[in-house]
Amino acid sequence: MEEGATLWAWKSWALLTAVRSQSPLIQCITNFVSMDLMANTLLSAGASPAMLHTLEEIPDFTPQVHALCLNVGTLSADWLPAMKLAAELAHKSGKPWVLDPVAAGASGFRLRACLELVELKPTVIRGNASEIIALANASVGLTKGVDSSHESTDAVESAKSLARASGAIVAVSGAVDIVTDGKRVVGAHNGVAMMTKITATGCSVTALIAAFVAVDQAHALEATAAALSLFGIAGEMGMKLANGPASLRMHLIDSLHGLDEVCVLAHVKIASLS
Amino acid sequence: MEEGATLWAWKSWALLTAVRSQSPLIQCITNFVSMDLMANTLLSAGASPAMLHTLEEIPDFTPQVHALCLNVGTLSADWLPAMKLAAELAHKSGKPWVLDPVAAGASGFRLRACLELVELKPTVIRGNASEIIALANASVGLTKGVDSSHESTDAVESAKSLARASGAIVAVSGAVDIVTDGKRVVGAHNGVAMMTKITATGCSVTALIAAFVAVDQAHALEATAAALSLFGIAGEMGMKLANGPASLRMHLIDSLHGLDEVCVLAHVKIASLS
Amino acid sequence: MEEGATLWAWKSWALLTAVRSQSPLIQCITNFVSMDLMANTLLSAGASPAMLHTLEEIPDFTPQVHALCLNVGTLSADWLPAMKLAAELAHKSGKPWVLDPVAAGASGFRLRACLELVELKPTVIRGNASEIIALANASVGLTKGVDSSHESTDAVESAKSLARASGAIVAVSGAVDIVTDGKRVVGAHNGVAMMTKITATGCSVTALIAAFVAVDQAHALEATAAALSLFGIAGEMGMKLANGPASLRMHLIDSLHGLDEVCVLAHVKIASLS
Repeated sequence: MEEGATLWAWKSWALLTAVRSQSPLIQCITNFVSMDLMANTLLSAGASPAMLHTLEEIPDFTPQVHALCLNVGTLSADWLPAMKLAAELAHKSGKPWVLDPVAAGASGFRLRACLELVELKPTVIRGNASEIIALANASVGLTKGVDSSHESTDAVESAKSLARASGAIVAVSGAVDIVTDGKRVVGAHNGVAMMTKITATGCSVTALIAAFVAVDQAHALEATAAALSLFGIAGEMGMKLANGPASLRMHLIDSLHGLDEVCVLAHVKIASLS
Repeated sequence: MEEGATLWAWKSWALLTAVRSQSPLIQCITNFVSMDLMANTLLSAGASPAMLHTLEEIPDFTPQVHALCLNVGTLSADWLPAMKLAAELAHKSGKPWVLDPVAAGASGFRLRACLELVELKPTVIRGNASEIIALANASVGLTKGVDSSHESTDAVESAKSLARASGAIVAVSGAVDIVTDGKRVVGAHNGVAMMTKITATGCSVTALIAAFVAVDQAHALEATAAALSLFGIAGEMGMKLANGPASLRMHLIDSLHGLDEVCVLAHVKIASLS
Repeated sequence: MEEGATLWAWKSWALLTAVRSQSPLIQCITNFVSMDLMANTLLSAGASPAMLHTLEEIPDFTPQVHALCLNVGTLSADWLPAMKLAAELAHKSGKPWVLDPVAAGASGFRLRACLELVELKPTVIRGNASEIIALANASVGLTKGVDSSHESTDAVESAKSLARASGAIVAVSGAVDIVTDGKRVVGAHNGVAMMTKITATGCSVTALIAAFVAVDQAHALEATAAALSLFGIAGEMGMKLANGPASLRMHLIDSLHGLDEVCVLAHVKIASLS
């Protein structure tokens, strides 16, 4: 086995262990579709989710959380101020925050909102290839729904540009998950295709990234790659028992809860791509 | 086997195949309870869901979708303008749209909203018997929650009246699902009783109708009957493996994803009732 | 077997039977995360859920329901007037209503809202230990997310104080569920630890309490203890088949739907603690 691969596997296991033992409190301001699966993903990984989106509560609550996850999937004008304030408070108090620019190119309103959020210094941005390209290009165009019409590998240069421009780690989900800080590019090669047939798996892995970054903020690229890999492994384990997307969803969460050291060390596939 | 029945089965299979190959983009402005199951239903059938409800986004987004699904389950005054604008844009751009008048009779506010939406020329209206009767009678009365206190067959005349008045195909879910254009009446005899013990199955089949109508807008009655029948068959297949409503929900979605030609041709039960 | 225990078991079975036969209509104004599981919990128990939160609809709808469940999990300022009006109408029309003060101490805004709702005479208040302590202390402090950082038994005195001050039955979920009217204290000893790894199980049992109180309003303490015990038994039965939190969620709902007299009589563990 390649030495680098072994190091990634040990790092991933160490991060999961830290999430389980520290149970970081993750505030999620996210779309309505994803709330159930996202909360259950965080719980299964050992983190503590809090779906709390109201402007009046942000000043009291956000400074107390360990990380923040913002997701624009069902964005509306009345939710945006709370998202911005939460991002500002997280940044100000030195807490990591993660942005999921769902369907960034679906409308001018949404793209502008995403760009405003990017200005507030996310620690990590995770999207599919179409979303990252749209955000990088910052031009309005149709992202087909919330699904991607591009391969993740098409988006590597866009991801690097966005990472350099924003200062964030940028992750692109796809057959291979790409993670970059603008210079280094790492690929996580776990997961199964049927995960794209379950709504909110992308949203949920973004929240999982927030939990991983919460326990090792100094290594956000590594934490992001580890979260993507482990969620993918949970999908691979789940797929052995699944008969379709709904049973995969169940087994994926069960598997994430049950991941052990032997399984993690045997299955993490993360490697430098540049 | 009756010749008409065989034709319905072939038609249903052809429509499912078209949904799988074309993956129509279906915009859903729907109630909070249903979003998860509705998105997963569409994904499992091969369509591409987009839960996007914000007024500011409708002008950019709705003209690009292949069909629209409106559902008033958790309606509030601030969501109604987006629903109306989306319906208008769908109608204007020649795209089909489907209305689910959940608990239409639950309040005067809700019934008026439903009537305003009916004015905007839905392609299909699907509800349970109480909802269709309430809408046809256009009088305020208590629909017991979102469950039906009438049999679907009680609502045939109401459905025909509503279809003639609105120009929409009207579907009434029940032990037998009824579909009418105001003249023809077709019955789809698939499904199992326990599906009524799973929240949002009705909402989800309405979204599935939108996907089917998206790929054959010229035959909206047939597409509606086929969607109802195939969702029912997925329930029948799921019931073989289920131990209760939650496992039925899982197996239903898995079965919808896995439906093959042999199963569809053997199980579609659609027949003319008039 | 202790005589008191047998009486509790018979009472619990009688209440479940009544819910199944009367199918009470339960209005839920609840957080977005919980809506799916809460509706499915009520359906599986035989009740009829209605997730209806809009101010304009409350005057028409709430007087018709059999019980009301209010949950502040994703509270926002625009939902609060509807919650208050619904509580007032329920109280005025002699219908029971149940409050779930999720994360009561998470912000000043939320704690004030909870205190205002407590003023409106809930029949039952159910929370975890941290929530009940925060509400009893009525002082702002961080409740860690929606999870509890106290044991239920730490909260007995707080629960009794809150019960006496509010006139409500107060229930505290935990390893042992505590129910008190301010004088009597009863413990329900069912359930499994993994239920805390499923989002919205607490919210859902609160809705189940509403359904049980709906069919025996005169004995709200007994109905509350029975609902907590039976939901816990469903978890115990589910745990025999589960491989993790997601399969437990499924089996729990299936088990709740399938609970029979033999199982209920054998497993109810309710006892006086004072």
